[in-house]
Amino acid sequence: MTTSLRTQVAIVGAGPAGLVLSHLLAEAGIDSIVLDSRSRAQIETTIRAGILEQGTVDLLARIDPDSRVHSVGDRHDGIELGFDGERHRIDFAGLTGRGVWLYPQHEVLTDLLALRLSRGQDLRFEVTASRVDDIDSNRPRVIAADRDGGELIIEADFVVGADGSHSVVRHQVAGRSSEGYFREYPFAWFGILCEAPPSSEELIYSNSDNGFALISQRSPEVQRMYFQCDPDADPNEMSEAEIWDTLQARVPGTTLNEGRIFQRDVLRFRSFVARELRHGRAALVGDAAHTVPPTGAKGMNLAIADVVLLSSALESLLVRRDEGPIDAYAELAMRRIWKAQHFSWWMTSMLHIAPGASDFDRRRQVGELRTVVESEAGRTYLAEAYTGWPFATGA
Amino acid sequence: MTTSLRTQVAIVGAGPAGLVLSHLLAEAGIDSIVLDSRSRAQIETTIRAGILEQGTVDLLARIDPDSRVHSVGDRHDGIELGFDGERHRIDFAGLTGRGVWLYPQHEVLTDLLALRLSRGQDLRFEVTASRVDDIDSNRPRVIAADRDGGELIIEADFVVGADGSHSVVRHQVAGRSSEGYFREYPFAWFGILCEAPPSSEELIYSNSDNGFALISQRSPEVQRMYFQCDPDADPNEMSEAEIWDTLQARVPGTTLNEGRIFQRDVLRFRSFVARELRHGRAALVGDAAHTVPPTGAKGMNLAIADVVLLSSALESLLVRRDEGPIDAYAELAMRRIWKAQHFSWWMTSMLHIAPGASDFDRRRQVGELRTVVESEAGRTYLAEAYTGWPFATGA
Repeated sequence: MTTSLRTQVAIVGAGPAGLVLSHLLAEAGIDSIVLDSRSRAQIETTIRAGILEQGTVDLLARIDPDSRVHSVGDRHDGIELGFDGERHRIDFAGLTGRGVWLYPQHEVLTDLLALRLSRGQDLRFEVTASRVDDIDSNRPRVIAADRDGGELIIEADFVVGADGSHSVVRHQVAGRSSEGYFREYPFAWFGILCEAPPSSEELIYSNSDNGFALISQRSPEVQRMYFQCDPDADPNEMSEAEIWDTLQARVPGTTLNEGRIFQRDVLRFRSFVARELRHGRAALVGDAAHTVPPTGAKGMNLAIADVVLLSSALESLLVRRDEGPIDAYAELAMRRIWKAQHFSWWMTSMLHIAPGASDFDRRRQVGELRTVVESEAGRTYLAEAYTGWPFATGA
Repeated sequence: MTTSLRTQVAIVGAGPAGLVLSHLLAEAGIDSIVLDSRSRAQIETTIRAGILEQGTVDLLARIDPDSRVHSVGDRHDGIELGFDGERHRIDFAGLTGRGVWLYPQHEVLTDLLALRLSRGQDLRFEVTASRVDDIDSNRPRVIAADRDGGELIIEADFVVGADGSHSVVRHQVAGRSSEGYFREYPFAWFGILCEAPPSSEELIYSNSDNGFALISQRSPEVQRMYFQCDPDADPNEMSEAEIWDTLQARVPGTTLNEGRIFQRDVLRFRSFVARELRHGRAALVGDAAHTVPPTGAKGMNLAIADVVLLSSALESLLVRRDEGPIDAYAELAMRRIWKAQHFSWWMTSMLHIAPGASDFDRRRQVGELRTVVESEAGRTYLAEAYTGWPFATGA
């Protein structure tokens, strides 16, 4: 059985990018249908990154009076950088007047799903897009299948690929043969969730002779910590004692509060930018357009920056019949994306020990960290990027 | 024939480091003998780098009332950064209140030699040190030969190796087997001197798809320009027309004033830091201690920073019999050296196209340049390093 639907914007993917986009479009009086191959429960329980830029938090609070970002999320006014046995604070609030929030992505999604459903959003779970047709015409179509195998054809004025790093829409927009720009990193993060009180009030990014570690927080009872590991590491190979020894050795000066480790995973590092972000009547946002290594905490924030820009361009296109902003979308979005790719690369390369790094490389790295922390301008440059550059709206 | 001499500090090398050190020691009432294997004419005519930090200029002007740095040197209050078809000014004066001076090193040396000789400095040209003995005792000795083959033995309280990148003193201080930390870069600079009016008031550092170029000035009639080339390039292989075409293609937006090219050379890029800067009664300064690639314009300035620190430590040791500052010399000097190595690496890697750079690398580089120029903090961070961090005196 085939069901045919008609909407103004077909959004493939109900992650942060797709859901915020559907909301901003609705504010502009533009209808959309959002599809996701996952169930609502899957979306609400998948653990992902959790650091929100000031601008992301401001936007979530504005669009959703019931957002729990301020009540459940935890504002952080700085981070600590550790290297060469020293510890230096980067005072985000003092340097930039801005901060970041620790608020896990699945909580953001829980809020956004409730918001969109309460506003009557056409939001379809367990519907898997298989391809996008006719994006060179004014009537692009998304072809999808529901959980029972029924075919769904959504005809729209515009199609948005917000469908993550394995995007289906990307094939049509960026071309099948060579979809984009890649960079692999020769290390990964070993991440744990544990039952313990916080070991530090703020995040500690530690460059140590033993490798990088990040001490993060989740709640008063649960903590998230990471340490640099081999990308092929098996998360189940280490004992809990070995994990704690590894972490402890990488944060000299801090005694970690240990506790039962109830989740462990290995996060591989990968940078990607799609070669094209828009073709005809289709565009890419979020992980479909780019992935960044987690060190810069830019993933979800970059997705939100994309949709702020795209929603404004779609309003111009669909409400005012002005094609200028949609024609400028890719170039404007790319400027922020490459700045964020740089920042993510910079934080990664400044803080991790690359396999085969020479003694020269190691000492230069400490020289870099010292140059940054000893200079107010250096600390501000880092803080501006971490807390997020202002969103462009293309207006 | 052997001549035996006695002094407080034996300084091997009459470059900027050795000569400024001899002056600062004399101000503190400490005698020194300075040796150099070159003739005075050779020292005064060898073309080297020519960008002086604010602090270097302030020091030269203070110690030498006849210094021509302010009259012949040319103050620059900023540089221009070019990339992606854009040009952005880094306003040193506005951002930091500091500037740099273009004043060639051989002119600095001409001033310093005249200064030291007028003050009665024992300064011996064409005397080649062959080794340093007994640096673990309080009576280290420099063994040298004059141009007629006569042996010279200088017994001192302290020996300083200011004898450049092929330092003889370094063997004793840093150990013969593994003298230090190295980094090679996969490119070099093709440099020219030409008879032409300036093409730009300020230096242009240009990152172009064709590779890096630097447009610099020497005088109203003579200009210095560089472009990134293969380290094995033969400077005589290119025609003048090819050189101008290469330069012109790398500075879009600027029409270069061409003129007869009367000198051409290939400068290889190399980073080096000696493993130890001080052992017993001997220490290293300047190029004997470190070399940097030219992109950061740090070479001579770092040498001056070393001797400011070392002269104060030697005054404590030899006048007040306080060993604390000389024991701290290496660590304090290393902090600045590694910051400068980082800055030199950063400017180099941000501006040059590495052989084999991927499309990702290239776009990340432009993202980095954009992040720096769009942020006052980013521009200030760069300007602080370029114009020079304040000298530490160890006091």
